[in-house]
Amino acid sequence: MSNSFTFRLIETNGAARRGEIATPHGRVQTPAFMPVGTQATVKALTPEDVERAGAEIVLGNTYHLMLRPGAERIAALGGLHTFMNWPRPILTDSGGFQVMSLSALRKIDEKAVTFRSHLDGAMVELSPERAIEIQTLLGADIIMQLDECVRLPATRDEIERAVNLSLRWAERCKRAFESAPKGRALFGIVQGGDDAPLRVESARALSQMDFQGYAIGGLAVGEPQDVMLSMIETVMPHLPADRPHYLMGVGTPDDLIEAVARGIDMFDCVMPTRNGRHGLAYTRFGPINLKNARHAEDPRPLDDESDYPAARTYSRAYLHHLVKANETLGAMLLSGINVAYYQTLMRGMRDAIEAKRFDDFRREAKAAWVRGDIEPLTSPPTA
Amino acid sequence: MSNSFTFRLIETNGAARRGEIATPHGRVQTPAFMPVGTQATVKALTPEDVERAGAEIVLGNTYHLMLRPGAERIAALGGLHTFMNWPRPILTDSGGFQVMSLSALRKIDEKAVTFRSHLDGAMVELSPERAIEIQTLLGADIIMQLDECVRLPATRDEIERAVNLSLRWAERCKRAFESAPKGRALFGIVQGGDDAPLRVESARALSQMDFQGYAIGGLAVGEPQDVMLSMIETVMPHLPADRPHYLMGVGTPDDLIEAVARGIDMFDCVMPTRNGRHGLAYTRFGPINLKNARHAEDPRPLDDESDYPAARTYSRAYLHHLVKANETLGAMLLSGINVAYYQTLMRGMRDAIEAKRFDDFRREAKAAWVRGDIEPLTSPPTA
Repeated sequence: MSNSFTFRLIETNGAARRGEIATPHGRVQTPAFMPVGTQATVKALTPEDVERAGAEIVLGNTYHLMLRPGAERIAALGGLHTFMNWPRPILTDSGGFQVMSLSALRKIDEKAVTFRSHLDGAMVELSPERAIEIQTLLGADIIMQLDECVRLPATRDEIERAVNLSLRWAERCKRAFESAPKGRALFGIVQGGDDAPLRVESARALSQMDFQGYAIGGLAVGEPQDVMLSMIETVMPHLPADRPHYLMGVGTPDDLIEAVARGIDMFDCVMPTRNGRHGLAYTRFGPINLKNARHAEDPRPLDDESDYPAARTYSRAYLHHLVKANETLGAMLLSGINVAYYQTLMRGMRDAIEAKRFDDFRREAKAAWVRGDIEPLTSPPTA
Repeated sequence: MSNSFTFRLIETNGAARRGEIATPHGRVQTPAFMPVGTQATVKALTPEDVERAGAEIVLGNTYHLMLRPGAERIAALGGLHTFMNWPRPILTDSGGFQVMSLSALRKIDEKAVTFRSHLDGAMVELSPERAIEIQTLLGADIIMQLDECVRLPATRDEIERAVNLSLRWAERCKRAFESAPKGRALFGIVQGGDDAPLRVESARALSQMDFQGYAIGGLAVGEPQDVMLSMIETVMPHLPADRPHYLMGVGTPDDLIEAVARGIDMFDCVMPTRNGRHGLAYTRFGPINLKNARHAEDPRPLDDESDYPAARTYSRAYLHHLVKANETLGAMLLSGINVAYYQTLMRGMRDAIEAKRFDDFRREAKAAWVRGDIEPLTSPPTA
């Protein structure tokens, strides 16, 4: 466990990249998808489930954890890895995005963002220095700078102000990070909304600061997919090729494939778990809404070729029943099945890049989603 | 899987009995506790969790399953064992108790009970014959007669009417059961409220009908523990000693020990799972309310000698956090920990009966609950 953070590029195929991240808590194969463990738990999954689903790294939320149970308390209890019984790598976000999306009342000035806790109404200050301190107390392997994330649509002036503030905060985070325990990594976050020149300016300025990795933030906040992909294409030439590229808060299986095709190495998103809790299964055959009555008598499992046992074991009829009856087991099984599908998709992309056939993989995966697997129940498949 | 139902008495110690039930889906060591799988799932647990917790048999609820997804549908999907992925024995109740406790509108006459579904408001009829048909469709290993369960307090006339109706329904169930698949068992249910002569009358009449097992119903419905225990003592001499004795819907760990001391062989209860979902852990040291702020910084696991991994792995501080944050994982872990503790308690009783030291076990278990395990955090235990 004494490894320092490193990133090694293993193979490329077009713009797609196959790599490996090493951290003090182990290695992560990239492109990688990080399930989100908002409140020190990936919702409705045990750490064993998360590992069984194939995840090698999870994300923790600074915003939630600083408010409850508190970073100092988690540190006193041995750090986030021990607290949540996840011995593998953890990346923590900086709290900036949640402050924007969850706090009704917030005030941003040069020094810090001040916001009202959604839990108890207390006013809380989060400065770049405090964001680094919190993530250090949590014991994260990968630490994110504090940034300001603006909602889209926004005026150019609003976006520019946030980009510049985020750059000054990036420098302060870098300075604060110098006293953090060795071996951890600090990532900068490219902002700039949907404004290409500002995105380029942000990426260039961050690159000069020499972070261990670079995230693209402020996307997947409601804009169309083509805007997001265009922003990735705009930014990527201005980021160092020898550092990991992390697209924050993304996305659908299709988003993941298209972003990897453009050079992204890391992702996090609540979609597999949140949508699983609402009855949606992600599969090789595309998304399947188990609330739909057509599954009520379907004895087939979701995917009898899945590596994840629950996807092979339980019938669609049973999953439909659990979802309709609002049983916790439905959320548990579908969250695990979805995280496992996301991991299978990432593994498929990694293998395809190594085999120099990423474009084929992309085409085949999309064709399978479109084809679906609806079989007339009167003539079951014979294969 | 071709075993027919049998019950074998292995050892006795005072009135306490150590036995073994064989069913078409495997064996059950008694005294046994059955976790409740109301809607074809033991809430917040996978079947693997239930098995890992040590349970050998679960209970399914006829009332819930007949309304959703329906007995015919479960039969078409291969029966309840296949549907819920639980290959071991299943006992189903008859629906009588839930009709009493969950249906606002119900009408009982000689023929059947008619009630309004709490799901869609439809009027549903449940006759003794239909109760047997449903449980047969579900594929239960142990089938319960339909009975009428009165709320206490009730007048002697009300109780007597329900006892007599339940006896006539017992005969009809027995007749209907003759055409059920071989190997299954049908249990009669002793009613009589808190009226000792009526309890004796019910037990004697049922015994003459020669059921494969005998349940005591209509207790643990709000009466004091001493009333419940007194009713057990009243009934037991009038039940065949060579058949299993099942106390329905009970209870606390103390209830289980006291009932086993009086000759009960089987139990079911929602307490370990329901109270687990509400933050209460059952342990060797007595119940522990994890909502309590005193656990917020406690790094100790609930029981580092438990056979169940989650009871050894997670700190009380983490469980407290999950409960306070209303995270599903809290319900999952505590439900498993509680079912495992109940199973450990039953195994302890079985071992004690075999060793002819049940009274010692009873005294020691209660002393440990009273003693608790509160250690001053400034001087951790050295043992």
